[in-house]
Amino acid sequence: MQNFSDRALRAIEAKQAPICVGLDPHPRMLSREIFNEAVQEFGECQKAVAQAIARFNRIVIDSIHDIVPFVKPQIAFYEAYGAAGIEAFSDTVKYAHSKGLIVIEDAKRNDIGSTVAAYASAHLGTIEVGHTAVARGFDVDAITVNAYLGYDGIKPFIDKAIEFEKGVFVLVKTSNPSSSEIQDVPLGGPYSGMRLYERMAALVNEWGFLSVGLRGFSDVGAVVGATFPAEAARLRTLMPQAIFLVPGYGAQGASGRDVVSCFNLKGQGAIVSSSRQVIYAFRDQDGREKCDSAEIGQYIRTAALAMRDDVRHALESAGKAML
Amino acid sequence: MQNFSDRALRAIEAKQAPICVGLDPHPRMLSREIFNEAVQEFGECQKAVAQAIARFNRIVIDSIHDIVPFVKPQIAFYEAYGAAGIEAFSDTVKYAHSKGLIVIEDAKRNDIGSTVAAYASAHLGTIEVGHTAVARGFDVDAITVNAYLGYDGIKPFIDKAIEFEKGVFVLVKTSNPSSSEIQDVPLGGPYSGMRLYERMAALVNEWGFLSVGLRGFSDVGAVVGATFPAEAARLRTLMPQAIFLVPGYGAQGASGRDVVSCFNLKGQGAIVSSSRQVIYAFRDQDGREKCDSAEIGQYIRTAALAMRDDVRHALESAGKAML
Repeated sequence: MQNFSDRALRAIEAKQAPICVGLDPHPRMLSREIFNEAVQEFGECQKAVAQAIARFNRIVIDSIHDIVPFVKPQIAFYEAYGAAGIEAFSDTVKYAHSKGLIVIEDAKRNDIGSTVAAYASAHLGTIEVGHTAVARGFDVDAITVNAYLGYDGIKPFIDKAIEFEKGVFVLVKTSNPSSSEIQDVPLGGPYSGMRLYERMAALVNEWGFLSVGLRGFSDVGAVVGATFPAEAARLRTLMPQAIFLVPGYGAQGASGRDVVSCFNLKGQGAIVSSSRQVIYAFRDQDGREKCDSAEIGQYIRTAALAMRDDVRHALESAGKAML
Repeated sequence: MQNFSDRALRAIEAKQAPICVGLDPHPRMLSREIFNEAVQEFGECQKAVAQAIARFNRIVIDSIHDIVPFVKPQIAFYEAYGAAGIEAFSDTVKYAHSKGLIVIEDAKRNDIGSTVAAYASAHLGTIEVGHTAVARGFDVDAITVNAYLGYDGIKPFIDKAIEFEKGVFVLVKTSNPSSSEIQDVPLGGPYSGMRLYERMAALVNEWGFLSVGLRGFSDVGAVVGATFPAEAARLRTLMPQAIFLVPGYGAQGASGRDVVSCFNLKGQGAIVSSSRQVIYAFRDQDGREKCDSAEIGQYIRTAALAMRDDVRHALESAGKAML
């Protein structure tokens, strides 16, 4: 029995890289050659796009698996292509696992009662497929969830996470411009002086108590956008045991300096994620491809290394000796 | 060009039934005969469960399509079975449309930027499947969404809804016990005296202004649980133009009397949804089947009629002459 949090921290240590590459495959941004090949093979249909996605992801994974501990496929880009898209998602998860990567599914799922139990079983655990047989579902290592519905909408995810040694990341303060609209709303009554995201953080901290691992971190983590460094610093103190999953680095505007406040004083407790800036590094600012498909892996690897080094240097400069 | 809201109100009028049947297929609750047949045909695997679900849903739809205007498949129960499950979902949507039903997908999707754009296109609009070709995605008539991420996480759904004459239902006050944990948190500052769900309601009202149809309702509706009638009454005044999608009737404990406050004085503006109490009406309280599979449709139809009449009578008793 081991905790997801311990596994995550060990992987970060081994690669000296608290970073994650997001697998957000926009069909128009994939390598044109790979896309064209799939369309030639299958015709213009869902299956073609899904195949192109799966092939592209394999190139990304081949390029980064020895230097990056985590990948984060965003399920929206897969489910868009129906059954074929879900097969591409499954192929990507399996391939990532075969290369030793930890897979965080960005799904932001949320529901109640038997519905959320179905989500939790399918994404983190096993599902019944007959009178006695069970099958692995999506078989990811962790999932992002939205807690607007309260604890009974989150508990089944936590239960399955503990049972199957997996993790949950609860949305606390997201990286988008209008995250302030709801998340920053000022509270009153017993919570006077707080904002909603701080109340959410207090709940996440509470929900994580039962799954703290040997290294002091919980299997219940938090999504905290890199685009709000001041808020992240405050959240770091409110959730000392939560691993932060930190989107917003790169294309969304945040740099290494901005993510430092997501780490604790030992330089632990955060996973910085970037998608477009890494996986589309083979395209220039106008979207044109810089190379043929045989070379895109090199561009992707170079971008991942640059991100890793930027985060490392920022931590060192801030006196947070990494790891 | 017509609004989703107008189409929804017309369908309610035509069937004199502001109700919706939830298609939440728990594998253990399906007709045993249908389940066994599918397992015999395909073996114990995802495909078998997915086939059983699709067949069961067709029986439900056949039993209620002339008396109920809406069905609400909960995507969690389909995506649990991977690619085969998504095919079963698609089959159910197509079959429901062929019988004249309006399909509300319960998905509670939420994200930001290009990701939420991908969700919105896939669920409500069209997706690119090649250099020029596009395909319908999930092709549902409306979808539920979670707005914890603020307006930029909702706008793509609203844009696609308007473009494709579809609807969006934003979670405001959910029916589950711990919905109060976040949604009822008291606010301060400019929102002093309000609770979070009231702030959310104000935003939903605002977001809906641009898509008000001929009958005075918007394509941006709200999910308001039947289990909180007092809150629903307050929300009815805060969102006069929103159609309420009202879960919590039946198995979750609410009755016709409880949902009356979700309707306006003319008895308009709400769709009451029930899943288990209708689709599993052929099982007794201990879960035993009351009949063989040829008769389950009659039990389902009887339960749907009972629900319709209960809601009708409650509206009449409250002086809200329906429609």
